[in-house]
Amino acid sequence: MAGRPDVAASMTNSRYEVRSIGTVESPLVDREAAPRQGDEGSPDAWLVFDPGVSEGIRDLQAGPEIIVLTWLDRARRDVLTVHPRGDARNPLTGVFATRSPDRPNPLGLHRVKVLEIKGTSLKVGPLEAIDGTPVVDIKPVLEASKDA
Amino acid sequence: MAGRPDVAASMTNSRYEVRSIGTVESPLVDREAAPRQGDEGSPDAWLVFDPGVSEGIRDLQAGPEIIVLTWLDRARRDVLTVHPRGDARNPLTGVFATRSPDRPNPLGLHRVKVLEIKGTSLKVGPLEAIDGTPVVDIKPVLEASKDA
Repeated sequence: MAGRPDVAASMTNSRYEVRSIGTVESPLVDREAAPRQGDEGSPDAWLVFDPGVSEGIRDLQAGPEIIVLTWLDRARRDVLTVHPRGDARNPLTGVFATRSPDRPNPLGLHRVKVLEIKGTSLKVGPLEAIDGTPVVDIKPVLEASKDA
Repeated sequence: MAGRPDVAASMTNSRYEVRSIGTVESPLVDREAAPRQGDEGSPDAWLVFDPGVSEGIRDLQAGPEIIVLTWLDRARRDVLTVHPRGDARNPLTGVFATRSPDRPNPLGLHRVKVLEIKGTSLKVGPLEAIDGTPVVDIKPVLEASKDA
């Protein structure tokens, strides 16, 4: 650590391109009306994958839970503090201690169950992401104790 | 689903810019020698944040576990199937059913404990990400049952 702030400074603002690998199709269309978390009344949704990544999803099966990473493209990226859950009675909190969608990199992290597979589409749930949200990655759940 | 492949097609290749918010400082420097998962002998590491996001991390504390999202900038992005754990004896598997760093969007997902805080740096562990890996997001762990 000591004497290395220059390292951090030199890395600052490195930028990378994240590409949509698919899209959420959901009855949720309104961000304001969407549940805050998957287990707060969220519906099931389809993940419609780009045919170009079909090889990548070929070993997914109905039954297990998976981790879905989305890009919350309607979020604000210039926000570093929020009132948790959008409630002004909650004290302003640094976004990295919250699950606010508004944050420098609006990545959504969702643990969902795979309910059905049709071609290159997966039905999953419950999912709080709204219709049209880009999907950027899928990961298997490891053990409960260490799943991020 | 039916009749909507055009939607998926039109979304294909949407691209977004993910920005580094900090950097991993770790004794691990060699990807090939790095543990496959955090709990497989990984060391502790420092997350050195960009001073520009200091407001965002102000409510993180030593003690709890957090979820760290990294951008595995040395991974290959043109890979859709892998032999899990790099072992040719394991059958070729679609990357989205694995935790391979090589994948279309090389996002790393790490559940770690916060061990110490110094200024805008966090000591965390165990972490399998190698030295210099960009950090792109931090999220709190919710309940064990639903943490993605």
